[in-house]
Amino acid sequence: MKKVSIKDVAKEAGVSLTTVSQVLNDKRDRFTTDTIEKVLAAKQKLGYLPNKNAQQLRGSKTKLIGVLLPNLANPFFSTMMQSMDANKESDVDLFFLTAPEEDIEAGIMHLVERGMDGLIIAQMIKNPERLNNYLTTHRIPYVVLDQSDDHGFTDIVRTHETGGGELAARHLIELGHKQLTIVQPAHLTSNMNLRMEGFKHYCQSHNVATPKVIESTLSKAGGYAAVDDIIASHSTAVFATNDEMAIGIIRGLADKGWQVPQDVSIVGFDDIDIAQYMTPALTTVAQPIETIGEVALQLIMDKLDSTLTHRDQQSIVLPSELIVRATTARANLDNS
Amino acid sequence: MKKVSIKDVAKEAGVSLTTVSQVLNDKRDRFTTDTIEKVLAAKQKLGYLPNKNAQQLRGSKTKLIGVLLPNLANPFFSTMMQSMDANKESDVDLFFLTAPEEDIEAGIMHLVERGMDGLIIAQMIKNPERLNNYLTTHRIPYVVLDQSDDHGFTDIVRTHETGGGELAARHLIELGHKQLTIVQPAHLTSNMNLRMEGFKHYCQSHNVATPKVIESTLSKAGGYAAVDDIIASHSTAVFATNDEMAIGIIRGLADKGWQVPQDVSIVGFDDIDIAQYMTPALTTVAQPIETIGEVALQLIMDKLDSTLTHRDQQSIVLPSELIVRATTARANLDNS
Repeated sequence: MKKVSIKDVAKEAGVSLTTVSQVLNDKRDRFTTDTIEKVLAAKQKLGYLPNKNAQQLRGSKTKLIGVLLPNLANPFFSTMMQSMDANKESDVDLFFLTAPEEDIEAGIMHLVERGMDGLIIAQMIKNPERLNNYLTTHRIPYVVLDQSDDHGFTDIVRTHETGGGELAARHLIELGHKQLTIVQPAHLTSNMNLRMEGFKHYCQSHNVATPKVIESTLSKAGGYAAVDDIIASHSTAVFATNDEMAIGIIRGLADKGWQVPQDVSIVGFDDIDIAQYMTPALTTVAQPIETIGEVALQLIMDKLDSTLTHRDQQSIVLPSELIVRATTARANLDNS
Repeated sequence: MKKVSIKDVAKEAGVSLTTVSQVLNDKRDRFTTDTIEKVLAAKQKLGYLPNKNAQQLRGSKTKLIGVLLPNLANPFFSTMMQSMDANKESDVDLFFLTAPEEDIEAGIMHLVERGMDGLIIAQMIKNPERLNNYLTTHRIPYVVLDQSDDHGFTDIVRTHETGGGELAARHLIELGHKQLTIVQPAHLTSNMNLRMEGFKHYCQSHNVATPKVIESTLSKAGGYAAVDDIIASHSTAVFATNDEMAIGIIRGLADKGWQVPQDVSIVGFDDIDIAQYMTPALTTVAQPIETIGEVALQLIMDKLDSTLTHRDQQSIVLPSELIVRATTARANLDNS
């Protein structure tokens, strides 16, 4: 099925392409009323729509924002995307892309070639200087957040990751836990690294042994797969890199007959929507997921606002917050 | 920040717009090597990119597919979207939109005006005939699924909803449950109506009393809010319209000191990713979520394939499957 083109309208009206184009763009001085009416009737009859992308090239104000996310399967990202969608103005369209780590740059080039006016990048970039040069050359403003590192090139929205890691460690240490384990992916993104550094640093400065580190994939399945190693570690408490991983760990422990929090305490990170509905409900360090999306969108819109001729580069740090629910309890020192 | 335009290139190279356009479109016969090199050097220096949307108007094969979803917060839809994204060819871009129920038609018109080549519609349409006329007039092929009703206008992908409802009822009745409750939204979409009709019909044909119906919003919070009514109903088993609702019900019952499945059995619908990780793990009727996304994408691509001159309208019904986990058990008739 082929869309109705301006050629179809010209043929139907029995006039030239140029005539149709000028009549539809309100440059009607040169034409008779009869010609104008023939063109408008043909447009109506065929249901012809001027393409808004083409109009955009002629200066329409609709903005296209590309959003790069690691995935939509983790509710962290789908909630963030939903938040941007709910907060956008009616003259903004969001275009999302999830690219595998090795293809992120190709994904960004694709979005730029596709005509994006600006980008919001939540994925880790391997060569941020090269990317910045590319986007600067093509005059595409962008904002980075979450997994994307801060290289000082552009606006960034972050959660206070170090503080979040510290909150998790403090909570577990105050409950009497001394043998702690971190479950994390083999390759930490910059924000996750800060999260874990905060956790380890708090342990160190409170005379608690350096946490053991167990590596697994960053997903529910990855958390589940780490359970044998967690049991073998004789730890009384686990800090998972995110809630998805924590949920997998809790399920895996239950399948081995271990009870949370009686046998092991678990702290997650993110506070995705499901966390409060789990049984036991998940203790976690909350990120303001919806606010992150809202702020990122606001920053990119400001960058696209040509009436704001100059503004300082923004580095927004949003607070993290410990939400104590039911997966943490006083250390059961018999286990260790 | 303004993007580099073809005008900038022409100015930099000291040639006309037409010259730049023709050189960049490989119509170089008329020009000297010197002119061609000046244009290419200016393009390189400024980082000019021909806009792919503009190229599309000139016959490029990149396809834009618009996807209308009720929301991304329910993992059912984010997983489906992820599946389409993972299965699309490199020459396809997906554009997603979540519109409030009363604005769906405006959302669709917006996507059409934005230049979509085809649409995948997973939302309920109030006036399908008017929509079909609109899309047919504008020659935009579309495929409907999930919440969208079947009016015989176009290809449709469905799960066997009636069969799914029957599976849930059979499972509960075989476990000895005789006092059943359905928790559902006040306004059922067409597919959810079939789901509930299948459940009720199975009860009727097996001499089990008509299930009580409790209405609440279709979300975890809605399930949670229905708990007082569920307890008051003295039912031994509940069929929730979807997993999100079931998860909210289980959490709400736990907060009232009720045990699942000892006090009440719960069956969900969808088998979203989290279902198997819940404690107790959720018994549910699985929809093949990823396959639905994959098939819908295939159908719309077929419709856009101009080499397929005619094919019959497709109505694909995918099987639903009961997944028995740990939220259902033999009826405890003491409760009733």
